[in-house]
Amino acid sequence: MSPSDSYPTTPRTTPRRHKDRILRDRRVIHDILDAAFVCNLGFVADGHPAVLPLMYVRLGDAVYVHGSPGGRPLSAAGQGGLDVCLAVTSIDGFVLARAAFNHSLNYRCVIVHGLAHVVEDTALKRRMFHTLIEKVVPGRLADTRPLTERELATTTVLELALNEATARIRAGGPKDTPEDLALPHWAGTVPVMLTTGAPIPADGQRGDAHLPGYLTEVDLHFRSTVATT
Amino acid sequence: MSPSDSYPTTPRTTPRRHKDRILRDRRVIHDILDAAFVCNLGFVADGHPAVLPLMYVRLGDAVYVHGSPGGRPLSAAGQGGLDVCLAVTSIDGFVLARAAFNHSLNYRCVIVHGLAHVVEDTALKRRMFHTLIEKVVPGRLADTRPLTERELATTTVLELALNEATARIRAGGPKDTPEDLALPHWAGTVPVMLTTGAPIPADGQRGDAHLPGYLTEVDLHFRSTVATT
Repeated sequence: MSPSDSYPTTPRTTPRRHKDRILRDRRVIHDILDAAFVCNLGFVADGHPAVLPLMYVRLGDAVYVHGSPGGRPLSAAGQGGLDVCLAVTSIDGFVLARAAFNHSLNYRCVIVHGLAHVVEDTALKRRMFHTLIEKVVPGRLADTRPLTERELATTTVLELALNEATARIRAGGPKDTPEDLALPHWAGTVPVMLTTGAPIPADGQRGDAHLPGYLTEVDLHFRSTVATT
Repeated sequence: MSPSDSYPTTPRTTPRRHKDRILRDRRVIHDILDAAFVCNLGFVADGHPAVLPLMYVRLGDAVYVHGSPGGRPLSAAGQGGLDVCLAVTSIDGFVLARAAFNHSLNYRCVIVHGLAHVVEDTALKRRMFHTLIEKVVPGRLADTRPLTERELATTTVLELALNEATARIRAGGPKDTPEDLALPHWAGTVPVMLTTGAPIPADGQRGDAHLPGYLTEVDLHFRSTVATT
């Protein structure tokens, strides 16, 4: 693997446990980030830990979150960047072992450490919103009233570079100890995934029979990009 | 509402924005916590923010996470408790407004601040594991090899009281500005939910045709307990 295919090893990206579950492969990290919708942004506020769930999107080698300029932690990021830890997790299955103790969870997770910076470039802010909308529902952007300069100006966007980034994946079946394998209990995995239901038209919608084509296949991108069985 | 039906207001549970989305109702907070499986535990490590995704379960007015005694942050919680912020989020829908800018997400979220303490009481640790296993797959506990004293002893359990706890909920359709309502773009909500697939028997499983009854209805408890439309 060439250096550019993986993110670097630093003290904060070196695990103490389950070292076999840690991955730095760039494609794996991108795939996990592109498959989920909410990140958990951790930061320190007045000396105490704070965690904020936020939508996010990846563009190249950075992730982006957005919010009102008055909101925490966006207002704090103006002065030289905000020290953050960003976590994204998708769950893929309940792992049922013969022993209660060995039950587990299949998941894909990315953790990113770094300084988040406010994005001043309006073109990049616009591209971030466009990418986010298309990530959530591919094909949607063309069926919207475009963003105005004023809307972009009233939103703060934070950029966090994917430098100190690691992935953790747990996949596959249960790992019972040899002496438990003969027990009569059912063992295996119950797959878990996000799915979508039928779109619900808004009040005042003209003719709900006219569902746009891009909404009939909205479920497609929930497919896991990492094999889990 | 009597005082015992809601958690108290403190500086950290007073929002700066979207005050209309903040709830302190105890039942609402419990329902949101009981419907999800992974929390994000934020803490401060060497002066930097850290976020760790962990399974959790609620018992009464506390949430519990567990891990190896050597793992961060569990090892740090031994000395007088660990200052944490715990976040749990379920996503319920993609909200498609006529304006790109007004796209949103329906979600249910709980944020808890406080000191997490190590649980020394073995009976409580056991009850925590039992509750977690039954939360994930109701009926499963009876079909497992029970926890041993040694297994309990080698696991650290942290307790975080639901004292400074708030819920945030975004539900319902898009909120376009009046001047955008006449635009021809489709507007509405795409429901999103966790679902389960067909159970996959482990290698060496005796007779995979013999699926236990409790696994045929494992999807039931994914139903949202808060109306989202």
